[in-house]
Amino acid sequence: MAECIFCRIANGQLQAAKVFEASDVVAFLDIGPVSDGHTLIVPKAHYQTVDLCPKEVLARMIQTAAMLAKAVMAATGADGYNLLCNNGRAAGQVVPHVHMHLIPRRHNDGLFDKWPSYTYPAGRIEQIAATIRANLKADLD
Amino acid sequence: MAECIFCRIANGQLQAAKVFEASDVVAFLDIGPVSDGHTLIVPKAHYQTVDLCPKEVLARMIQTAAMLAKAVMAATGADGYNLLCNNGRAAGQVVPHVHMHLIPRRHNDGLFDKWPSYTYPAGRIEQIAATIRANLKADLD
Repeated sequence: MAECIFCRIANGQLQAAKVFEASDVVAFLDIGPVSDGHTLIVPKAHYQTVDLCPKEVLARMIQTAAMLAKAVMAATGADGYNLLCNNGRAAGQVVPHVHMHLIPRRHNDGLFDKWPSYTYPAGRIEQIAATIRANLKADLD
Repeated sequence: MAECIFCRIANGQLQAAKVFEASDVVAFLDIGPVSDGHTLIVPKAHYQTVDLCPKEVLARMIQTAAMLAKAVMAATGADGYNLLCNNGRAAGQVVPHVHMHLIPRRHNDGLFDKWPSYTYPAGRIEQIAATIRANLKADLD
């Protein structure tokens, strides 16, 4: 897509600090990182979200992220890392071209320390699981 | 691993609100969700982190998450979703058996709204990218 910045990076029209490139995937540093070495793994073909990607594209994204994880950790001295795909505006997706964030983490760095978990009321978890299974069955039928 | 709770769910020793199961992967609702329908996708074999997983296990994890995304969204009425793998204690990994969070999101739900991005000083992004490439080359050689 001509107006998509990740398509333009993928096809070389826009410059980026690339760390890996193959025929179908490119990885480069986020220019607005949340930690040094914050990397984006992007399929070259344009798909908006994970659920719209062909299976082989998904495989390549996460396999590339796994391959890069050790090098990014070594380069930044990180103690761990998050892999994160935001799908849809409601989930924080800003560029509507699917991408995986690889975010190097350090102990007690204070990033993403808000994890507001709660407990379901009795019976609710089974009810939601049954509804998901019913929707999944409808998808697969 | 006998003491791993995700291994025990995978082999049926521990009960969980399962939404999908295959020979190599299981998906079930997180009992401490951050939103209704918060699902965990877990390979049945025990690997600690993404970088330690065989390629085919990674592919199955994200492909299962993609397949489940629509059903979870439909069941919960969500507007988007995050896929998240925390790797290592520093990254917020609590159970040391690799897993992918599928987190349904709604517009303005206030989850994960802290995204403390910054700008690199001049020259720093190229320097970090070069260091990552050097480490990657060492890994691949």
